[in-house]
Amino acid sequence: MTISMYSASVPPLRRYLTALSGVLGKGAAFAEARKIDPSVLLQSRLAPDMLPLARQVQIATDQAKGGAARLAGIESPKFADDETTFAQLRDRLARTVEFLSSLTPAQIDGSEGREIVLTMRAGEARFTGQDYLLNFVVPNVLFHCTTAYAILRHNGVELGKRDFIGTP
Amino acid sequence: MTISMYSASVPPLRRYLTALSGVLGKGAAFAEARKIDPSVLLQSRLAPDMLPLARQVQIATDQAKGGAARLAGIESPKFADDETTFAQLRDRLARTVEFLSSLTPAQIDGSEGREIVLTMRAGEARFTGQDYLLNFVVPNVLFHCTTAYAILRHNGVELGKRDFIGTP
Repeated sequence: MTISMYSASVPPLRRYLTALSGVLGKGAAFAEARKIDPSVLLQSRLAPDMLPLARQVQIATDQAKGGAARLAGIESPKFADDETTFAQLRDRLARTVEFLSSLTPAQIDGSEGREIVLTMRAGEARFTGQDYLLNFVVPNVLFHCTTAYAILRHNGVELGKRDFIGTP
Repeated sequence: MTISMYSASVPPLRRYLTALSGVLGKGAAFAEARKIDPSVLLQSRLAPDMLPLARQVQIATDQAKGGAARLAGIESPKFADDETTFAQLRDRLARTVEFLSSLTPAQIDGSEGREIVLTMRAGEARFTGQDYLLNFVVPNVLFHCTTAYAILRHNGVELGKRDFIGTP
């Protein structure tokens, strides 16, 4: 009568990032069709002090791989943050999905009560594994996925909610 | 070694909407300080064919209350969709949080395998309760919460990720 930490983390995170890759694919196609330099979109922001599209994608993947790795109690793979094209960002998403897929239920199940300590600018934040997943990792990943989507929509890319939600 | 459907739904959804209410509070204060008609913000969009701020808030609450009600197998409360002020939208969020708080673990626990059928424009969509929560309700609610935040940020309201993530 319950769900496992694995099933509440790895499959949904994988799905959110896979959908984001599809969203970026539409952004790339839009740039090509309109003969727009793709970097115009990748450096686009919704406000001068918000991060541009490329950083939104980097952070979405960082939060997903870091979140799952912390729940599993292992090191998160480090990526170079040097992507400058849609193809490179989609490759980063694929590598993140691949890392998530390498995790097993045995590594993550049972982490709901594990203490997770994050060092943030404001100091240390302590969570149980369950709070960390539901109240930090998932909203952070979806925040950056949505912002990436919104930047492309704001620039005229034809996207619908179904692109964001993805398919099983 | 698992988590319950109640704990994976009601407390996080409540938290996301409570944080959104705080975000709207900052939007209202911004409008007042700058002597901007609040409806300018409430009708603001990120793209001509995206929904304005007020609708984003209405849909976030609809997805949250409808999602939790479907998992509980009960009717979702109906709201009139007639909010025209920040205060009214924050009241709608408060009423949604109140409804979520009225649900008990006994009503929602065990719904992970329950069949949920949605009638959508593209036809019927069938989910298990767990898929419905993690791959539909949560991403939809957070999509609209993020878009509301992004509309206000785009209009110059001083908001940070911590406003979006909220506090326990």
